Amino acid sequence: MIFKRALIFMCLCSCFGWTQTRPAIKDSLQIITLLTEQKNAWNQGNIDLFMEGYLQSEKLVFSGAGGPVYGWNNTRDRYKKNYPDKETMGTLQFEFLSMQQLDKRIMQLQGAYYLERTQKANSSGFFTLILKKVDQNWLIVSDHTSARNP
Amino acid sequence: MIFKRALIFMCLCSCFGWTQTRPAIKDSLQIITLLTEQKNAWNQGNIDLFMEGYLQSEKLVFSGAGGPVYGWNNTRDRYKKNYPDKETMGTLQFEFLSMQQLDKRIMQLQGAYYLERTQKANSSGFFTLILKKVDQNWLIVSDHTSARNP
Repeated sequence: MIFKRALIFMCLCSCFGWTQTRPAIKDSLQIITLLTEQKNAWNQGNIDLFMEGYLQSEKLVFSGAGGPVYGWNNTRDRYKKNYPDKETMGTLQFEFLSMQQLDKRIMQLQGAYYLERTQKANSSGFFTLILKKVDQNWLIVSDHTSARNP
Repeated sequence: MIFKRALIFMCLCSCFGWTQTRPAIKDSLQIITLLTEQKNAWNQGNIDLFMEGYLQSEKLVFSGAGGPVYGWNNTRDRYKKNYPDKETMGTLQFEFLSMQQLDKRIMQLQGAYYLERTQKANSSGFFTLILKKVDQNWLIVSDHTSARNP
């Protein structure tokens, strides 16, 4: 299922010329797998597992309407504070919009998220991720997320 | 004035250890000068001059609550549509929060913006910029901006 979606995404990239600096298929697959695993972890209510997609480092930056949060621990704490239970976490879906390789080991990904909740208002928006290849693994080093305009 | 602010910024970076992968002073100065020139252009009501801070390429991505806009021309058109006159543009101030070198030619900058207007509501928020060194010049290749939480 992961690979089917990844292939569709890469075909779309080719069709629309989204990736001016086109990533290798292997790298795209690794990154889409990473985000799909993050989504699955989120939907299990497991923020610790979700956090495995981020570089475990003080270099990590998460930013949004509240301003930047620096470091893996602070990012995890922010998620745990803002999403204290499974109901608040809701059901997450990602949409991959484009991917661009900035350098051999630096990738940029644009995406959209949709959070469906039963007791609270739904939420959706857009994110820009910067991923870095550390050893052989791509990990998120920067995440800037904006809630969608009402 | 530009250099005084840049030096203060770099001193702060050293004091607080913000830059885990510390950029060279020359690169920091170039980037802060670029953003200061952008701010000055904005405050003159000159969006074309402001746009010179962005890589003139289809690779440029501007993102926010409205989702990603791809390419230099579309980014310029978005600015001209959303800020049609000097009154809407207001007076812009940037605050540099941190800078991190992701690769030899890739820099990440976190900042805050403040837009003061007399006839319309003020606006402020946060941005994550990715800059790329093209030839000898740093230029913005990715800009994700979020309005501040009310």
